[in-house]
Amino acid sequence: MFELAPEFIRDSVLVTKLKLCQVRLQNDQRFPWLVLIPEVNEVTEVHQLSQQQQNQLIQESCLVSSTLKALTQSTKINVANLGNVVAQLHWHVVARFEDDEAWPGPIWGVGSAVPYPDQKRAEFIDSFVKALNSAQ
Amino acid sequence: MFELAPEFIRDSVLVTKLKLCQVRLQNDQRFPWLVLIPEVNEVTEVHQLSQQQQNQLIQESCLVSSTLKALTQSTKINVANLGNVVAQLHWHVVARFEDDEAWPGPIWGVGSAVPYPDQKRAEFIDSFVKALNSAQ
Repeated sequence: MFELAPEFIRDSVLVTKLKLCQVRLQNDQRFPWLVLIPEVNEVTEVHQLSQQQQNQLIQESCLVSSTLKALTQSTKINVANLGNVVAQLHWHVVARFEDDEAWPGPIWGVGSAVPYPDQKRAEFIDSFVKALNSAQ
Repeated sequence: MFELAPEFIRDSVLVTKLKLCQVRLQNDQRFPWLVLIPEVNEVTEVHQLSQQQQNQLIQESCLVSSTLKALTQSTKINVANLGNVVAQLHWHVVARFEDDEAWPGPIWGVGSAVPYPDQKRAEFIDSFVKALNSAQ
């Protein structure tokens, strides 16, 4: 059975599940920021996935990226697997704007998270899931 | 004909060409840092590539990642497409160590590049290409 690292339970909420990955929303309204977590235990690097899983990951990343960019009208999408702090393999997809707090630098480690009010988070997730479903 | 953005010519050197991407070494000896650049003009986001190119990119990223990790014995590989500063689509593959200058944060925007002495850069490229060729 797949076990999610406690940091993801604490800092993000489940948006939807795709074939390989859980898609989670980071609870930080400074950035529209999704995290894809392949439901595969004990993997820390993308290259440890099977070739089929690697292809599935990039396909899911691209689906989430194009949906997020269209929804937010962002300047750029940033995608990354870092994992220097939380080892469990995870893949960031972040919508970036020229007036966001970290532009043009990366977002990780910048300032402190600003949690969403519950209703705003629910509305974002609802909009995102609808857009994702119509893109598939 | 594919045109490389001038920032890559200035800041990196060609290591090898794979089916989709140029593999370049960032001229910064603080981090073993490769940049994959798909030889496709006028693309800024991974999701703008064709599905076949997306799969090829992740395969080449994984080949470069596993080779770099084995060669450097790094703690972690970081992979990312940011592109907030240089728009041309490019994909970072960076070997990270717990005693490197930016750990555990991301490397982008941290401090200033420390160029390799010519011989050290040539030796790194030679070792990397040999390891890549034996992994393919």
